[in-house]
Amino acid sequence: MIRAAVAGATGYAGAELVRILAGHPEVVLTVLTSRQYAGVPFDSIYPAMSRVITRELETFDPDSVCERADIVFTALPHKLPMEIIPGLIEGGRKVVDLSADFRFRDPALYETAYQAHSARQLLAESVYGLCEVFADEIGRARLVGNPGCYPTSVLLPLVPLLEAGLVDPATIIVDAKSGVSGAGRAPGLTTHFCEVTESFKAYKVAAHRHEPEMEEILSRVAGKSVNISFVPHLVPMSRGMQTTIYASLVGDAGEEEIRNCLVQYYEGCRFIRLNQNGRAPDSRDVRGTNYCDIGFVIDGDNRRLILMSAIDNLVKGAAGQAVQNMNLMWGLSETVGLTGAPFPV
Amino acid sequence: MIRAAVAGATGYAGAELVRILAGHPEVVLTVLTSRQYAGVPFDSIYPAMSRVITRELETFDPDSVCERADIVFTALPHKLPMEIIPGLIEGGRKVVDLSADFRFRDPALYETAYQAHSARQLLAESVYGLCEVFADEIGRARLVGNPGCYPTSVLLPLVPLLEAGLVDPATIIVDAKSGVSGAGRAPGLTTHFCEVTESFKAYKVAAHRHEPEMEEILSRVAGKSVNISFVPHLVPMSRGMQTTIYASLVGDAGEEEIRNCLVQYYEGCRFIRLNQNGRAPDSRDVRGTNYCDIGFVIDGDNRRLILMSAIDNLVKGAAGQAVQNMNLMWGLSETVGLTGAPFPV
Amino acid sequence: MIRAAVAGATGYAGAELVRILAGHPEVVLTVLTSRQYAGVPFDSIYPAMSRVITRELETFDPDSVCERADIVFTALPHKLPMEIIPGLIEGGRKVVDLSADFRFRDPALYETAYQAHSARQLLAESVYGLCEVFADEIGRARLVGNPGCYPTSVLLPLVPLLEAGLVDPATIIVDAKSGVSGAGRAPGLTTHFCEVTESFKAYKVAAHRHEPEMEEILSRVAGKSVNISFVPHLVPMSRGMQTTIYASLVGDAGEEEIRNCLVQYYEGCRFIRLNQNGRAPDSRDVRGTNYCDIGFVIDGDNRRLILMSAIDNLVKGAAGQAVQNMNLMWGLSETVGLTGAPFPV
Amino acid sequence: MIRAAVAGATGYAGAELVRILAGHPEVVLTVLTSRQYAGVPFDSIYPAMSRVITRELETFDPDSVCERADIVFTALPHKLPMEIIPGLIEGGRKVVDLSADFRFRDPALYETAYQAHSARQLLAESVYGLCEVFADEIGRARLVGNPGCYPTSVLLPLVPLLEAGLVDPATIIVDAKSGVSGAGRAPGLTTHFCEVTESFKAYKVAAHRHEPEMEEILSRVAGKSVNISFVPHLVPMSRGMQTTIYASLVGDAGEEEIRNCLVQYYEGCRFIRLNQNGRAPDSRDVRGTNYCDIGFVIDGDNRRLILMSAIDNLVKGAAGQAVQNMNLMWGLSETVGLTGAPFPV
Repeated sequence: MIRAAVAGATGYAGAELVRILAGHPEVVLTVLTSRQYAGVPFDSIYPAMSRVITRELETFDPDSVCERADIVFTALPHKLPMEIIPGLIEGGRKVVDLSADFRFRDPALYETAYQAHSARQLLAESVYGLCEVFADEIGRARLVGNPGCYPTSVLLPLVPLLEAGLVDPATIIVDAKSGVSGAGRAPGLTTHFCEVTESFKAYKVAAHRHEPEMEEILSRVAGKSVNISFVPHLVPMSRGMQTTIYASLVGDAGEEEIRNCLVQYYEGCRFIRLNQNGRAPDSRDVRGTNYCDIGFVIDGDNRRLILMSAIDNLVKGAAGQAVQNMNLMWGLSETVGLTGAPFPV
Repeated sequence: MIRAAVAGATGYAGAELVRILAGHPEVVLTVLTSRQYAGVPFDSIYPAMSRVITRELETFDPDSVCERADIVFTALPHKLPMEIIPGLIEGGRKVVDLSADFRFRDPALYETAYQAHSARQLLAESVYGLCEVFADEIGRARLVGNPGCYPTSVLLPLVPLLEAGLVDPATIIVDAKSGVSGAGRAPGLTTHFCEVTESFKAYKVAAHRHEPEMEEILSRVAGKSVNISFVPHLVPMSRGMQTTIYASLVGDAGEEEIRNCLVQYYEGCRFIRLNQNGRAPDSRDVRGTNYCDIGFVIDGDNRRLILMSAIDNLVKGAAGQAVQNMNLMWGLSETVGLTGAPFPV
Repeated sequence: MIRAAVAGATGYAGAELVRILAGHPEVVLTVLTSRQYAGVPFDSIYPAMSRVITRELETFDPDSVCERADIVFTALPHKLPMEIIPGLIEGGRKVVDLSADFRFRDPALYETAYQAHSARQLLAESVYGLCEVFADEIGRARLVGNPGCYPTSVLLPLVPLLEAGLVDPATIIVDAKSGVSGAGRAPGLTTHFCEVTESFKAYKVAAHRHEPEMEEILSRVAGKSVNISFVPHLVPMSRGMQTTIYASLVGDAGEEEIRNCLVQYYEGCRFIRLNQNGRAPDSRDVRGTNYCDIGFVIDGDNRRLILMSAIDNLVKGAAGQAVQNMNLMWGLSETVGLTGAPFPV
Repeated sequence: MIRAAVAGATGYAGAELVRILAGHPEVVLTVLTSRQYAGVPFDSIYPAMSRVITRELETFDPDSVCERADIVFTALPHKLPMEIIPGLIEGGRKVVDLSADFRFRDPALYETAYQAHSARQLLAESVYGLCEVFADEIGRARLVGNPGCYPTSVLLPLVPLLEAGLVDPATIIVDAKSGVSGAGRAPGLTTHFCEVTESFKAYKVAAHRHEPEMEEILSRVAGKSVNISFVPHLVPMSRGMQTTIYASLVGDAGEEEIRNCLVQYYEGCRFIRLNQNGRAPDSRDVRGTNYCDIGFVIDGDNRRLILMSAIDNLVKGAAGQAVQNMNLMWGLSETVGLTGAPFPV
């Protein structure tokens, strides 16, 4: 059994990790940490988990964690992970970090979007945990930077087509929409029920920190610098993310080339579902699951590809992909612990 | 492995059965029927289930079902089940019926609330499938009438206290609230998004068909005729049911007697969770699970018990309890296939 | 024109006052105060009001307010109003207070539920602003304690029947449900979108501060001490309140007596709408309006009256009733400024 | 007083017309028609309107309507209006048609998107009722084709910039999002609460009938054929529409040029609100009002304009704009009857 610790277990991503790991047949949860709630049983913070997760939350103690866990999932605000992860790696533990701290290869990109990086040596070694794209590197990694939710929803549909040269990298526009849980559990006016319900709006227009994260990967794949236009929007729902991507087709690429490219790239990938007949992916259809549903339509008049994806921001966009990364790091089938059937409604 | 058929697999309760049975380690789904969608793969009706349930829907054929299934779950509108279940029982199959057709012991009660009963002989033999209360009878049954969602949410908290004589049966008032999925998948004005959102109202006030169903069981438990006041309300949410029950306490029964009574009655029952410290059950905490959370407060000024419960109307209130009934009928642990961890959010 | 000040203009009740007063033909808004946002234009806090209310928010200065306003609406947390209102009254101004500070006649009741009262002399003079019930006293008042939302929804349907002796005061049970805006604008975990959506639960069971407020009025009306059981619930919607009240009928009172009693009591009251044919009031039908819809059903088996009401908690339950009180205090028709047509959806 | 008839008064757009016209100081509602509910009082279909609109619904009779109304609003499914409107115009009445039947100048465009047009002569005369853009023509019109909701949300922000040559017409991408009321009142699976809540998806991708409607106007404004990419999405909310538009800037146009262009174009237009400081328009801020909020951000890396708008699909996107058209046709101020203050929450 893999002994797993979740640092930051009471945030939404952390609690979702707890939910998934609790049902993972190869994992035993040994440590749950929380600054705010140390000393309190997990299920008194999440009564839904009553009788299921009764373990007490504790303060993060690096030695104790190294002793009691084989893998540490860090579900903490950025900046904290780069302070504690070096010690965990030195202590011989593997880490999947859900913050932005170890997602970038280029420290300058990170530092422009966030702040000074205090663990650059590890940044060089860390692997970007987009499972279906970087599975081999992840399999050999000690430290994985788990992708952001928006980047996951954008890169999975786009990487194969960009790599195959089917779309023009200079024309990429991403119009993304997220449920409110993406904003985390800390209360604020922007997550107040009365401010969100019956509301739809864009935010951080062309200024979201996930944009450089995507652009670094897209540039790597395209073999040249890629600048996209990225506009996130807030949807009055709890979980779920839908993304619509626009890009000009290259040459005379048509529906068949696009479909074949995606089918071949994702052959054997159980969590990628390519919709038939132009059916648009619906965030409901992936709710509570690790699936990424992909669909596309070609706008013939303009020779533009309209590419769409849907994920659950807390699962494939966070905790589910983190567990999938662990599976890859341990050489398990990528689906272990992630096969709960989707809800019909 | 138990071979299971779901008749009426595309309604919300039927689809939820499919979801649960798909993850049940002792079950193989062999037949899914639908009048409306025969010939179509299940996952083209429920794209969420794409790659998970690809079996084709078929028309209900009794001989074929008897041949290919050990148990049949009938998730059909009332009246249909009583027409087809006699043939299934004759064919040696076990049946859990999710309609009202086999919930009543007294045919006259059924006929007043619904219509003439065409299978009275089976009604006499059928067992009311309230698992925690009638486990022994269910274990020996060929035919189980799966309880309604409202009755489940009312009877589980109330039966032990009524049986113990702690509450006065002449004073019971039930104020219940249900999510919209309780109204089923067939579209109508009452389930139109714009008519439901930002709306809260009572309906079928003191006139809902679940009232005689509860009263028959409560009368049996109390040993005398019990008439309650029952008012259901519609909540702008998809899944979930919360019920607040009011009843006068008998003699000097206090918090300790009430708690002890519930604790003892439900000892060993994994799906009943008794809240601590008067915490009110929240429908969110049981969403997607087979739990029934129970809480209570004593209104000292009036010597009144305020008893509250929360269930997921589609799980403990329908499909989950149906599978729990199957587990009991096959002598399995009641929790098999029903242990998915609750969602934190 | 009446010059009106709103103290606490950026809370939800305050902002709703601003909305209503902005459209009132006899009112000019002259002062809007806010501790948190002094110096900022109102419409930068509420962009919905852009171009409509551009006045700057200011700190509360009693002298300046007395000079510039004829009436002051205090939409502040309790305790603050009793500190500032005496000065306003001395300054010759009229006040409608939306907090609990001036709702009670018996200071002991207030002090048990809230804290020590520092303006008892004014408490003796203040009038409970339940417009349809205490119109005459309100017309002569300098200071009105605007009723709480729950008490409004309970008292309007219940007072006439209790006064007429048609229901037994010892048997009153109130099961009430409120939208989230009732919790105010200050963010917290209990108003976080992800914690509220797909959730239904009771809170402060038999322990809500609105209970003594109702009981004082009910006792006055009944001519003897009345203790009710009161359970509030939280509904995943923004605005709206629905209340279901249970009480035993006295003697052989039937549907006709109940209807006649309500019809006669509310003759000429434009904001009370009595539903026909037992139709249950829906919170949607009064959204954004000052109506209180009332309906009832008699549960014959138990000789129990089931009485239901629906209001918008921010309008008839707060700002709308406050303006109706002002209309009465100035001798205007009670409907002036409150006649916006209801939204169909 | 203008005597107004609403044909199709019980659909959502029709009922919203009734709400607005009921509060219009220059209008008296004289006829409400409904095929389905003829003979029934309007407020028994919309209990929210109880006591406010008690008029009986009637079948559409052209002679009677011509006799009793000066203006007819036709809020009917397309195809019906072109059958009845010629008679109304011949009868000397003015008409605002809310369907697509009289929105196109080119009958071929209409016929490709809808069906054969049976009143081509009137099509030539009808005016496209985008008030702020075509006010003069509307002022002289007998027949106005009221714009679709999506076209309104796209054309208002885009027309001034396209006309000024600031954006490249070959690069326009429109990612639009609508609340569920846009789908109308007729129940169906796509408007079922349980199918919509916690769901976000695109639909009719690059295949929506509003696309040719917009393109005809955009082409007229640009002076050459414009093809856009248009993707509508469904938001789990009742009312509201948010649209994000992407287009490449021409030359070195910057923030100041864009802002100045919009400010000058809409000088004196009370319903257009240009957000400051790049604040993204929120559908909540225009809920229940006739405002169109506009905001923009320039994505400098890509020299792309990101243009955003928010309207209430039932008001500025349907009934409100229809009344604004009537105001223009009668020479009234465009804001009469449309000045209700926005709701803060």
